[in-house]
Amino acid sequence: MNTVKPGYVRPLDLRNGRVDLGFGAGGRAMAQLISELFARAFANDYLARGDDGAVLPAPAAGERLVMATDAHVVSPLFFPGGDIGSLSVHGTVNDLAVMGARPLYLAASFILEEGYALAELARIVDSMAAAARAAGVVVVTGDTKVVEQGKGDGVFITTTGVGALPAGRDPGGARARPGDAVLLSGRIGDHGMAIMAQRESLAFDSEIVSDSAALNGLVEALYAAVPAEAVRVLRDPTRGGLATTLNEIATQSGVGMELDEAAIPVSPQVHAACELLGLDPLYVANEGKLVVLCAPEHAEAALAALHAHPLGAEAARIGAATADPQHFVQIRTGFGGRRMVDWLAGEQLPRIC
Amino acid sequence: MNTVKPGYVRPLDLRNGRVDLGFGAGGRAMAQLISELFARAFANDYLARGDDGAVLPAPAAGERLVMATDAHVVSPLFFPGGDIGSLSVHGTVNDLAVMGARPLYLAASFILEEGYALAELARIVDSMAAAARAAGVVVVTGDTKVVEQGKGDGVFITTTGVGALPAGRDPGGARARPGDAVLLSGRIGDHGMAIMAQRESLAFDSEIVSDSAALNGLVEALYAAVPAEAVRVLRDPTRGGLATTLNEIATQSGVGMELDEAAIPVSPQVHAACELLGLDPLYVANEGKLVVLCAPEHAEAALAALHAHPLGAEAARIGAATADPQHFVQIRTGFGGRRMVDWLAGEQLPRIC
Repeated sequence: MNTVKPGYVRPLDLRNGRVDLGFGAGGRAMAQLISELFARAFANDYLARGDDGAVLPAPAAGERLVMATDAHVVSPLFFPGGDIGSLSVHGTVNDLAVMGARPLYLAASFILEEGYALAELARIVDSMAAAARAAGVVVVTGDTKVVEQGKGDGVFITTTGVGALPAGRDPGGARARPGDAVLLSGRIGDHGMAIMAQRESLAFDSEIVSDSAALNGLVEALYAAVPAEAVRVLRDPTRGGLATTLNEIATQSGVGMELDEAAIPVSPQVHAACELLGLDPLYVANEGKLVVLCAPEHAEAALAALHAHPLGAEAARIGAATADPQHFVQIRTGFGGRRMVDWLAGEQLPRIC
Repeated sequence: MNTVKPGYVRPLDLRNGRVDLGFGAGGRAMAQLISELFARAFANDYLARGDDGAVLPAPAAGERLVMATDAHVVSPLFFPGGDIGSLSVHGTVNDLAVMGARPLYLAASFILEEGYALAELARIVDSMAAAARAAGVVVVTGDTKVVEQGKGDGVFITTTGVGALPAGRDPGGARARPGDAVLLSGRIGDHGMAIMAQRESLAFDSEIVSDSAALNGLVEALYAAVPAEAVRVLRDPTRGGLATTLNEIATQSGVGMELDEAAIPVSPQVHAACELLGLDPLYVANEGKLVVLCAPEHAEAALAALHAHPLGAEAARIGAATADPQHFVQIRTGFGGRRMVDWLAGEQLPRIC
């Protein structure tokens, strides 16, 4: 992101102005958008250099790099509990955190639709900057493109993160073993149902608020409490929900899973909204929840560490990995029955993140 | 990019199939798209791990990290000399190269429009994989989202790159000094006019072909020939063209520039197409050209190194940085006159990259 500001020009009209194609053309208007909007919000020395990329200190000796990317196309752009700006920070920070990494740097790339209000763009960028500060990451470089009206949808944001993976940490989807405890950091379905309730204009006694949050602090609290080796798998159950995440892990690790339905926290509002729309909360996206597969002998310490963190107050032990050559995920229902929990098939909630 | 393949399902129809919203929903269809299309084309151990990010070796001791990102929204998606896939690799590889870095890793994020033909997507992904192999970079992680028909435009691709910056190298837009030679690696305007000719269905005696190419090899050849300290500024003149790039450098470094119009290579076809469309080649985008500002005592060695590389065969010394408190870029015309070369104002060629 070139942050050079050209000589004197009239300031951008951030109150009533709109995105036009010139903002993506690489000339004076783009330089102005970047210096007056992006560079101001994300202010840091890396961006201020004004070059085509950022020069960054390498991780400490013995640490590996972790890299993750996420495109964000959520609709609507603003929702209870967040917006595409904060979501685009949380999504990528969480991808790094569940690799066991300490998130360090973000790159942000914007695809703007011609005609979008600059005032709304500024709100999104400010929200993104606040989320980055809260998560302890720095937006070090970026890019902006503009597409014609009807060829985009307001704002799409791709964020890419780089983090440092401390020696000894190596969680991965393929590392679960039969007997591992399955922990979940809180109730499921809040993000997906917050978006759906807004799209469908559903009104409930109390509003459903997205759980969108950065999980890196929670992951650090976990690693502080148990040996790194005991943390087998970390995942954030986003698109496809808890059900799909657990199926992925089962397939990757070659294990089965047995879950206890009664142990999985779901809020009454999400439960009601899901009933109304014919959805199963197990398949609804979350943006601030952590799934941990942990060696059983350390499961209680891990759960206590989650409980002690604000984002894990409602954490629960929801089941265990099993030896199952068919890698099935099964759930014990309230009536003593048992049902299969398959991958999400087809498309349940488009553009949820 | 989770590359886990779920249990047996019918293979994707890569000949006649189309993108549907399910491919972005996080379930079985998305897992299939990723394993059968992306992971197959980009095959490497980082992707094969199937986690939410990639774990990568850190740069060697003493090297710094460089990070750059670019969204690609070029229209049309296929053009003479390339397509959005190869372009998305070259764009980010070049951003790293002009920071002086050796490009190592790419993250790729796709925003697909519902209904887009899978066969075309496969062509794009294969082209991307070939360009990455040729440039010596590895696509280590990725993400896919799908938007409804009419909310996107086929395919948008954001690539983010990480590279290693060897000790001693520190080119930057603010480092030019009066007297520095301005070198250009070849003729300008080919990329932008290849796109425009296709959009406007212009026919010329010989087709205009995009110069889209990875510049990291050329940059390494330059550093092999002159002391790192002598390389003051590297830039690839993309959106806004050579004129805007030189204005950016002039502003960042607080210098002026004097160029020699006759020394700037432009092909006859690009010249003719620009005349026809009322465009100035100085403002037309390039995707495989390098601008070097170099200490004058090393300029001839630098130019010889460019000439010796296939991408620099037509390299030329086009002018010099000057002491000018107003940071003007001026050009000596063929008739002994002199004109100002300003920043690109407004929008000349939308969606050129």
